[in-house]
Amino acid sequence: MAQEVYHHTFANGLTLLAERMEHVRSAALNFLVPAGCVHDPQGQLGTASLLAEMITRGAGARDSRELSLALDGLGLDRDESVGPMHIRFWGATLARNLPAALEIYADILRRPHLPADDLDAVQALALQDLQGLEDEPRQKVFLELRRRHFPAPLGRDRRGTPEGIEAVTLESLRAQHARLFQPRGTILSVAGNVEWGPLRDQVGRLFDDWKARDQAPLALERPVGGQAHLPKETEQTQIVIAYPSVPFGHTDYYAAQGAVHVLSGGMGARLFTEVREKRGLCYSVSASYQTFKEVAAIICYAGTRSERAQETLDVTLQELLRLQDGVEQEEVERVQAGLKSSLIMQEESTSARAGALASDWYYLGRVRSLDEIQAAVQALSPQRIVEHLRRFPPRDFTVVTLGPKPLQLRPEVNGKVTAAAG
Amino acid sequence: MAQEVYHHTFANGLTLLAERMEHVRSAALNFLVPAGCVHDPQGQLGTASLLAEMITRGAGARDSRELSLALDGLGLDRDESVGPMHIRFWGATLARNLPAALEIYADILRRPHLPADDLDAVQALALQDLQGLEDEPRQKVFLELRRRHFPAPLGRDRRGTPEGIEAVTLESLRAQHARLFQPRGTILSVAGNVEWGPLRDQVGRLFDDWKARDQAPLALERPVGGQAHLPKETEQTQIVIAYPSVPFGHTDYYAAQGAVHVLSGGMGARLFTEVREKRGLCYSVSASYQTFKEVAAIICYAGTRSERAQETLDVTLQELLRLQDGVEQEEVERVQAGLKSSLIMQEESTSARAGALASDWYYLGRVRSLDEIQAAVQALSPQRIVEHLRRFPPRDFTVVTLGPKPLQLRPEVNGKVTAAAG
Repeated sequence: MAQEVYHHTFANGLTLLAERMEHVRSAALNFLVPAGCVHDPQGQLGTASLLAEMITRGAGARDSRELSLALDGLGLDRDESVGPMHIRFWGATLARNLPAALEIYADILRRPHLPADDLDAVQALALQDLQGLEDEPRQKVFLELRRRHFPAPLGRDRRGTPEGIEAVTLESLRAQHARLFQPRGTILSVAGNVEWGPLRDQVGRLFDDWKARDQAPLALERPVGGQAHLPKETEQTQIVIAYPSVPFGHTDYYAAQGAVHVLSGGMGARLFTEVREKRGLCYSVSASYQTFKEVAAIICYAGTRSERAQETLDVTLQELLRLQDGVEQEEVERVQAGLKSSLIMQEESTSARAGALASDWYYLGRVRSLDEIQAAVQALSPQRIVEHLRRFPPRDFTVVTLGPKPLQLRPEVNGKVTAAAG
Repeated sequence: MAQEVYHHTFANGLTLLAERMEHVRSAALNFLVPAGCVHDPQGQLGTASLLAEMITRGAGARDSRELSLALDGLGLDRDESVGPMHIRFWGATLARNLPAALEIYADILRRPHLPADDLDAVQALALQDLQGLEDEPRQKVFLELRRRHFPAPLGRDRRGTPEGIEAVTLESLRAQHARLFQPRGTILSVAGNVEWGPLRDQVGRLFDDWKARDQAPLALERPVGGQAHLPKETEQTQIVIAYPSVPFGHTDYYAAQGAVHVLSGGMGARLFTEVREKRGLCYSVSASYQTFKEVAAIICYAGTRSERAQETLDVTLQELLRLQDGVEQEEVERVQAGLKSSLIMQEESTSARAGALASDWYYLGRVRSLDEIQAAVQALSPQRIVEHLRRFPPRDFTVVTLGPKPLQLRPEVNGKVTAAAG
């Protein structure tokens, strides 16, 4: 199947991307609005999350109830989520309902009511969400890792702080909306059974009088890094480890993906085999890649019973360091097969394609074709992965644990941990 | 698109189902083997989970490592999971790799090595999985609810007990495999770009000399029911409520689905609106339907800060009871739009279709066409839903809470809770 991908950037900066998938009946849409929690005012951490919750409570000519019914009436499966950089609006439904959905989203993005009466309830929800974290040790340890490892404000949690949430007022929410909801940097991607011409015309009509604003560039702080332990009387000890990798778009990007998939993903992956299968050290162990435009990291996780936590940490770190000693051809073939197969799966899902279009555009300013990705995966080899690992060896680790007892780093690793800056 | 669904039951009882989706390149497979945890021997609870973990550690001519590499080398995204009734083997990959995957699954199901050397590690993992529950209050409260609400052994947790896991021996695992892994009651469903003739021939060749065995019918105990509180010093109080519904296949099934979707799913749903949006009582609130062949239940969940837990419980129960007073036309239209849209999404996913084929066959002994489901959804009306609710009003509640303090049931509800049997 040849891919049909379209792109238009309107004069005000809004980017529209579309992929026509003519054999499906659905369509998915994905708005990335550059209003993520990195933009929360310092004394009002949690603003983006409050805004994402308030913004669907009435917009344009519809009050909150009418808006809910209108969206549900289109059969729209939908979600609003707050990331560091963006508030994301995702929806999927029958392709024939897409134009009606876009009309409503234009109201939500541009003409939300942000009703005063709802603010108390929304703040109460946000406080609950934050408080619920205390009962989720796994999430908690990940948040602390991101906070320490990434240069602030990139590692910020969308949930904010109790003081921040309480300090938000209706006026500050409105100001945040006016400042950040704007076409420059906003990406709308659509995938499914759509016609490009009518789609572009409709989006133009809905959005081309939306006013652009300048946005101040983000100032990044030096990461905290280091090793930290969060004491808690849990049954299991949670371990997370991060180290720098190359960002999406870097020439080493595919080699970095190859390396992380040698470690994790599939039964034959090293962490699964060495930590879980052979030693039975922990039920869950994994590594994943997380990127920003400026920086990226490999993040490893293991949750284990406390008496085996030290051994789990040691073995996991040893596997990370051992990677640069060499990778087998059969491991690369395993990784290639998995990546190619997941590419085919993605190609068949309107939501996955809409997400990939927007993500490619945000990071690269263009959309990669499936052929291009396939060729890059095909070009992976043990040598390329090992050369990448020698250029970017695992070091500058940030290590966070949560459980009854702190863990020790072995001497050969200790020197590779960043000195904690704060 | 006309659906192309095929079915063949082999002489030994194995059922093969397939749906041809010619516009995709992937295929998904789904084995349901009637070896779920309801069959765990009483002194060895956890057996099915141990077996599911052991069964991929070498099979046929391949040792554990070779098997991992062979499956990963096919680009197979896969998972083995243990439910009450079945062990499920799911996989998805390129359609052209499906025959090779089926060859390997025939080894796994029929000729697993169950290697003695791995048992200690597998038992250690199972104990960790069980122990990890203590740090997951939400999962914990659901498990206790299912245990109390469903007639034993249906409500059993796959994780078993520490004593049960430790009591399992290699001999007992082998006996369990020999007893339960058999063609009678096993369903293999496949969806994707597959050809029926060659598929049926291959499955016949791989499985038609598999010997059928009788299986004793399951004896169900009287449910425990009642109200229970699990004391724990958590930040949030977890609340779960169950009440009986009609099983999948019952003439009231679609009306029951309609009722649960009036309560939950979409912004306009009653629990979301009343409990979360208007009152800000809790971040998460939902209702879902769970079925066995014999019995089914609606299960509601809310997680909330402890000082608002009593109000959350009261409001949630009130919404459940209020449903039989009437349902609006616009609520039914909302539900219909959502159900139709999710049907279209399912139609485009090989994994979703493979899952639906197997599930329909297990519960109904036939596969429903998408047209049939669509017509049934279209026939929903306020009157049908309310009549269903009057025939099957919410009562015989089981209520389980977890948190620092127990909650009270209001008098009008208290009479509707089953007397705890144990």
